[in-house]
Amino acid sequence: MEDLKQQLAQVIRAYHQKGWSPATSTNYSFRLPDNPDVIVVSRSGIDKSQFSAADFMEVDMQGLALPAYEGVRPSAETLIHCKLYRLFPDMMCILHSHSVYSVLQSMKNAQAVELRGYEVLKGFEGIKTHEVSVQVPVFDNTQDMTAFSETLEQEKDRLTVPAFIMRQHGTYAWGRNLFEAKRHLETAEYLFEVDWKFAH
Amino acid sequence: MEDLKQQLAQVIRAYHQKGWSPATSTNYSFRLPDNPDVIVVSRSGIDKSQFSAADFMEVDMQGLALPAYEGVRPSAETLIHCKLYRLFPDMMCILHSHSVYSVLQSMKNAQAVELRGYEVLKGFEGIKTHEVSVQVPVFDNTQDMTAFSETLEQEKDRLTVPAFIMRQHGTYAWGRNLFEAKRHLETAEYLFEVDWKFAH
Amino acid sequence: MEDLKQQLAQVIRAYHQKGWSPATSTNYSFRLPDNPDVIVVSRSGIDKSQFSAADFMEVDMQGLALPAYEGVRPSAETLIHCKLYRLFPDMMCILHSHSVYSVLQSMKNAQAVELRGYEVLKGFEGIKTHEVSVQVPVFDNTQDMTAFSETLEQEKDRLTVPAFIMRQHGTYAWGRNLFEAKRHLETAEYLFEVDWKFAH
Amino acid sequence: MEDLKQQLAQVIRAYHQKGWSPATSTNYSFRLPDNPDVIVVSRSGIDKSQFSAADFMEVDMQGLALPAYEGVRPSAETLIHCKLYRLFPDMMCILHSHSVYSVLQSMKNAQAVELRGYEVLKGFEGIKTHEVSVQVPVFDNTQDMTAFSETLEQEKDRLTVPAFIMRQHGTYAWGRNLFEAKRHLETAEYLFEVDWKFAH
Repeated sequence: MEDLKQQLAQVIRAYHQKGWSPATSTNYSFRLPDNPDVIVVSRSGIDKSQFSAADFMEVDMQGLALPAYEGVRPSAETLIHCKLYRLFPDMMCILHSHSVYSVLQSMKNAQAVELRGYEVLKGFEGIKTHEVSVQVPVFDNTQDMTAFSETLEQEKDRLTVPAFIMRQHGTYAWGRNLFEAKRHLETAEYLFEVDWKFAH
Repeated sequence: MEDLKQQLAQVIRAYHQKGWSPATSTNYSFRLPDNPDVIVVSRSGIDKSQFSAADFMEVDMQGLALPAYEGVRPSAETLIHCKLYRLFPDMMCILHSHSVYSVLQSMKNAQAVELRGYEVLKGFEGIKTHEVSVQVPVFDNTQDMTAFSETLEQEKDRLTVPAFIMRQHGTYAWGRNLFEAKRHLETAEYLFEVDWKFAH
Repeated sequence: MEDLKQQLAQVIRAYHQKGWSPATSTNYSFRLPDNPDVIVVSRSGIDKSQFSAADFMEVDMQGLALPAYEGVRPSAETLIHCKLYRLFPDMMCILHSHSVYSVLQSMKNAQAVELRGYEVLKGFEGIKTHEVSVQVPVFDNTQDMTAFSETLEQEKDRLTVPAFIMRQHGTYAWGRNLFEAKRHLETAEYLFEVDWKFAH
Repeated sequence: MEDLKQQLAQVIRAYHQKGWSPATSTNYSFRLPDNPDVIVVSRSGIDKSQFSAADFMEVDMQGLALPAYEGVRPSAETLIHCKLYRLFPDMMCILHSHSVYSVLQSMKNAQAVELRGYEVLKGFEGIKTHEVSVQVPVFDNTQDMTAFSETLEQEKDRLTVPAFIMRQHGTYAWGRNLFEAKRHLETAEYLFEVDWKFAH
């Protein structure tokens, strides 16, 4: 577990360098490989430029702190992580970004970002050719995490690739491990940027 | 104090890397936690790519060098820091940037930059939801620091978030400590960039 | 050979930093100086942020893994490398990028990107003055690498500088060694960016 | 001298990171403080990502290699350095960039880039207020360095700040030492970027 914490902390710092987590924003998690009902999630309010393995805590599948972490506040959006792990039981890692281009795309596209014909679409698991059109759904932002979790459940059929955008907020992406979740987030963010720049 | 100097110097170098302090521009300060009438401020004319803890000096609340620093020139804008600490007595740290998007916003907006509906607005202390509209005031630039300090005093009511822009110059942001001031500056700069790119 | 692997791995990580290889995308190769029928090529599916000398494998000029690497999968685009080394027998190194500006240029230009009058054009071997007009060809993307190799052979006369773009995919560039291939790729990418920004 | 070489080499690598010297482009020099007729200049064709103190050579005020460097080729643009040192005898260091925004400005402005009202203009030596308008001249690019040197001599009166642009090529800036030359180049490049982005 310590290794996984170190690896994810390093990714978090690298993503901060890219500008994907201004100030203390964004949150990240993984499930313990040998006990997937335990979610290791970033604590609330940590400056991501200096995020370290000590800045994680453990919660259960309802988002409640495990006894060893009583009194420590998990990220406010932990419920989103819990819901995604329930909807996609094979998924073991969730990443989040507040990238500029994710936010811009969400302000332009009411329902979804359409991405068509790009080689890098093959970065999404299961896609074998650039000759596809992919819809990354955009959901309205809210501070009510219970309501948002219900939205995710209702809209599950629209999650045809492992990523979505919260409007004026940012991207969530996930995978069966950190490696895959990273590939999915970077694929989405790269395509949001290219697609935005082409249209503007 | 040495620790605080080291921490702020590291932030200054990181901000230079982002392009927020071209050449020798910008200035930074904090107040001594156990003696808040002493302001530790960056010296004038230092290359921010190599700023170190030795490049600070101490001034009083009038901006005058303390005896140990007689003859050393503080940053020209030290009076702005002094005034902000008087107007907001709980504030202990002030950061400044000359970011490209701050300058661009100030050339487009006569009175204030309006930021509406962004999740990252919650980076400003006291804001709990994205469903707000925030005005970051833009004041005309001047070389007369006494006059500008008076402007700040007169316009204090418009400082509803801990940041403002000087026109064609850059952003000031502040907080109760370095951590909070950093969160406020990064929140403002991120939103200036997103907002500019959406409109152009 | 170990030295060359280390040097190319360092370039690969640096290019990832520039955003030229999101997720696990792109591929790279060089030929052994004392046995140019052996191609050292990046393995498939490696995260380029952490690419190391151990992530290469060896194939022959048909793209088949050498016995020591039986069962290891080379990059899917290895056949492109093989074909380029056959078409340009003096070339010893091939680099690839998925840069944003390469993709943007390929979506705007049906046949070729025209670059005219730039000093940096002298970065292409053999060009001695900025007073030239260069055409970097754009070929349609495909997942059929055999078909694409034939396209390269048929269109060889259009390869008047050592670089081309695959549409909505990225740039290939090559040289007589890593140093020259690097100069050619950086020349192309820089000019794609300048040229795009001037027109938009 | 070794110290100065190390310092300038570090600046060169940092500028490469900013994208100011794609491939092997750009060149840099300083004069020996105790023997200003000796110019220490970057050798031709060095990859700037790895430029080290060993990549300098020494030439005289005519641009000819000193005996210890016989047979080594200085940068092709050494004659520009020689001419600038003659025109401005107090100047001891010259920096060059091929930045994207310098090239873009030179394609838009036939005669000069006008910069007006920016605080950062104070980065140019002698400017004490933002309430000025500065003209950075743009000269046509040429491969004939003797001709270009004559242009500089004839147009000396237009060099009212220590910087100019060669069209579709890049910026030259200079100062009485590395520190000042660096401040001047960074001032110019920052303002070229802001000014371009505001207009587009």
